[in-house]
Amino acid sequence: MWEKRMEWPLNAAAVLFLAAYAWPILQPSLGQTGRVWCEVVTWVAWAVFALDYGVRLKHAEDKRAFLKSNIFDLLIIVLPLIRQLRLLRLVTVLNVLNRNAGLSLRGRVVVYTVGATALIVFCSALAVLDAERTQADAPITDFPDAVWWSITTITTVGYGDRYPISGTGRVVAVGLMVAGIALLGVVTATLASWLIRRVTEADENAQAVTREHLDELTREVKALRAELAEQRAGVSPEASEPLGTARG
Amino acid sequence: MWEKRMEWPLNAAAVLFLAAYAWPILQPSLGQTGRVWCEVVTWVAWAVFALDYGVRLKHAEDKRAFLKSNIFDLLIIVLPLIRQLRLLRLVTVLNVLNRNAGLSLRGRVVVYTVGATALIVFCSALAVLDAERTQADAPITDFPDAVWWSITTITTVGYGDRYPISGTGRVVAVGLMVAGIALLGVVTATLASWLIRRVTEADENAQAVTREHLDELTREVKALRAELAEQRAGVSPEASEPLGTARG
Amino acid sequence: MWEKRMEWPLNAAAVLFLAAYAWPILQPSLGQTGRVWCEVVTWVAWAVFALDYGVRLKHAEDKRAFLKSNIFDLLIIVLPLIRQLRLLRLVTVLNVLNRNAGLSLRGRVVVYTVGATALIVFCSALAVLDAERTQADAPITDFPDAVWWSITTITTVGYGDRYPISGTGRVVAVGLMVAGIALLGVVTATLASWLIRRVTEADENAQAVTREHLDELTREVKALRAELAEQRAGVSPEASEPLGTARG
Amino acid sequence: MWEKRMEWPLNAAAVLFLAAYAWPILQPSLGQTGRVWCEVVTWVAWAVFALDYGVRLKHAEDKRAFLKSNIFDLLIIVLPLIRQLRLLRLVTVLNVLNRNAGLSLRGRVVVYTVGATALIVFCSALAVLDAERTQADAPITDFPDAVWWSITTITTVGYGDRYPISGTGRVVAVGLMVAGIALLGVVTATLASWLIRRVTEADENAQAVTREHLDELTREVKALRAELAEQRAGVSPEASEPLGTARG
Repeated sequence: MWEKRMEWPLNAAAVLFLAAYAWPILQPSLGQTGRVWCEVVTWVAWAVFALDYGVRLKHAEDKRAFLKSNIFDLLIIVLPLIRQLRLLRLVTVLNVLNRNAGLSLRGRVVVYTVGATALIVFCSALAVLDAERTQADAPITDFPDAVWWSITTITTVGYGDRYPISGTGRVVAVGLMVAGIALLGVVTATLASWLIRRVTEADENAQAVTREHLDELTREVKALRAELAEQRAGVSPEASEPLGTARG
Repeated sequence: MWEKRMEWPLNAAAVLFLAAYAWPILQPSLGQTGRVWCEVVTWVAWAVFALDYGVRLKHAEDKRAFLKSNIFDLLIIVLPLIRQLRLLRLVTVLNVLNRNAGLSLRGRVVVYTVGATALIVFCSALAVLDAERTQADAPITDFPDAVWWSITTITTVGYGDRYPISGTGRVVAVGLMVAGIALLGVVTATLASWLIRRVTEADENAQAVTREHLDELTREVKALRAELAEQRAGVSPEASEPLGTARG
Repeated sequence: MWEKRMEWPLNAAAVLFLAAYAWPILQPSLGQTGRVWCEVVTWVAWAVFALDYGVRLKHAEDKRAFLKSNIFDLLIIVLPLIRQLRLLRLVTVLNVLNRNAGLSLRGRVVVYTVGATALIVFCSALAVLDAERTQADAPITDFPDAVWWSITTITTVGYGDRYPISGTGRVVAVGLMVAGIALLGVVTATLASWLIRRVTEADENAQAVTREHLDELTREVKALRAELAEQRAGVSPEASEPLGTARG
Repeated sequence: MWEKRMEWPLNAAAVLFLAAYAWPILQPSLGQTGRVWCEVVTWVAWAVFALDYGVRLKHAEDKRAFLKSNIFDLLIIVLPLIRQLRLLRLVTVLNVLNRNAGLSLRGRVVVYTVGATALIVFCSALAVLDAERTQADAPITDFPDAVWWSITTITTVGYGDRYPISGTGRVVAVGLMVAGIALLGVVTATLASWLIRRVTEADENAQAVTREHLDELTREVKALRAELAEQRAGVSPEASEPLGTARG
């Protein structure tokens, strides 16, 4: 119930968060007032996520189990409070993707992969631009360049025409590379499981046929037992009764 | 019937389309008349694809279902009408590959992968050359360079000796990278499904053996039931009849 | 028999071929006599492969089927006769790897993958060095560089510190990239099939258990039938015979 | 017993080894005394590994089988004695990861993959820095650069902003590339086996249902046989005894 009702506010908070994070980076000339407002909006979005976590914790029957299985969510809420880790607030947004229940396993994998890849590329471009802009001689200086670099990195192409030179930029790059390996793995695994599924459907049909044979056999044995019961009712009493009357 | 008859015209239209698209790019010195003729041919090819779609829609029993399951075809027909999206007309050609029915699933995967990869590399090289040629200091300036760059990109090698610098060129590059991820996924998945198939053939044989055992058992039970019926016909009536005649 | 006896000569021919191909490339200062000798050795090795093909064709019962299933072997023998395609003679050597029968499917995949990768890297380095050496400003100028470039290409890393600039060099590079995609696919597929095998072994055990249950059931039904036969032999004849004698 | 008791000393030896290997590389200004101490510590760690191998060999029942199945361990102990191969001592540390028994197969794959990747990146960065530092114009000159290069290489991104130029550095790079191919393969294969597992769980349930049907059938046949035995005890003796007494 709560999860249903929170769907819309969480998505809105994620979009607002992304917008407020992106604005000062995309428009470096933004004045002090604008920057403060963006900061406020990111904190409000954070508060919505924290509130959602709190209510889900309160509603949970086994609080210990909830804490244990949602340890990642808790970290995402708590860690951005440390100023140096505020980049992690971007991960919060990814979490919203987690809520698309109701699809088949492979459907969810596809939705999550496409959504997560787009978000990771967008957020990494923002983060790397933020980190590299202040560097002298940095190859990445505007947003289109940053997006281009993000995509060449996550696909593991890596031309090397653009690359980060700051420490923070390189940390973001490592995150993108790991995401790239995972992306390749997920695409391949989904394709493989689909292909293997199509090929092994014959197996399942064979299993179904086996079960049908088995059911036919069971019917046969049941009929046999019924006939036998009937025979016993017919042979032994009938066969002995006439003998009895013959004797009388 | 229609699909069979359209196979040849569609393939011809695709080849003509590719030729008319490639010519003005490969020969920049082509005069105005030549360019107009090429434009005319691409529109004729487009008309063949539109006609094919229209007739298939007319022949469809459930028009709503046809529109729904062929939404991608419709987009490919409609979108190139917008001038900025005329690059998408190249996708039309890929669609022709979709028609090779009659092969096994894995056979179709192989044909489609090889065909699509070759077409994507060729079309991307043309598109990127078209976009980059007008740029100052562009690293990609002739067709062999463009093909070389396409191949280093789709295989995710990405030397970085050639790379696009215009916006359109980068969009084409992103398409190539996505195709590269998909290509790697399809190659791996096909190999994996083949290897797993070879290894699990033993499983299927085991299943077949199980079914044989089951069939033998069914024969056994049927024989049992027949014997029992025979016995009943023999024992109870025969055993009581002699008794009856003994009494007479 | 022939295949067994040819194993050693074929391997020797492959090694000689590689040595004779590599020598003039690795030692550009080699005199005219040395070059002629190397050319002679490559032709002798080619003759051994051609002879092997001929004898296998002669021994084949269904010559048409042999030609059909060994079309690739024939092309490898015939094509290097065209001077421009003499690079293809390197493929002949790969063919020798095809002969390691007697291993399990996955074992053969591993041996073939490692052997083919090493051979492809070595031969590509030789071929690219041969093609690039004559180019002005070529980034690849000695054998260690060529091997280094081959490995960065086949693993799809592609630093871009070395890359071919001649047409022939780029054709070799494309071959290496395709081999790289295949290598990645084969490694992943072998690992996946091994992991899936380990995980599905439980399935097979379940199947074996099912079969055991089935066998027990069959024994049960057979015993039932035997008992019934015994009973019939006991009840109907014995039961009616005493009656018959009682009457007598 | 021995393996349990050695767990802690082996881990400690591995950490000490890494520290003593890393220190002189990370602090080039380290004095002669410090270098000697680091050398001593690496030899002590080596001795712990050699001792562990020796005791395991002594405890092994079939020494020949132990030597055969632990040939890799022996090589790792013996080879670093050759000065030129002292880099191989780093592989010893990887071996410690081999000891995490008690996890599920996929769990062990994940732990081993993450641990081995981190160790390989760290050790390769050290080794390449050691090899490249003395080169003129080397692109890799400090530890952060070396780690950055290691990660771009193992993920097969390969920007080309940093690359080794010495022979030793390139050998390390080839090791990293092979590890990168393996990493991609393991990630994909683990994901694929997980996805396929989830999808084929239905198959297993189907198998369980088949087995239940089979068990029901077996119960049915047993009941039938029991009834038949009862019937025989009832019909034939009872039916013939009254006849017998009727005669008496």
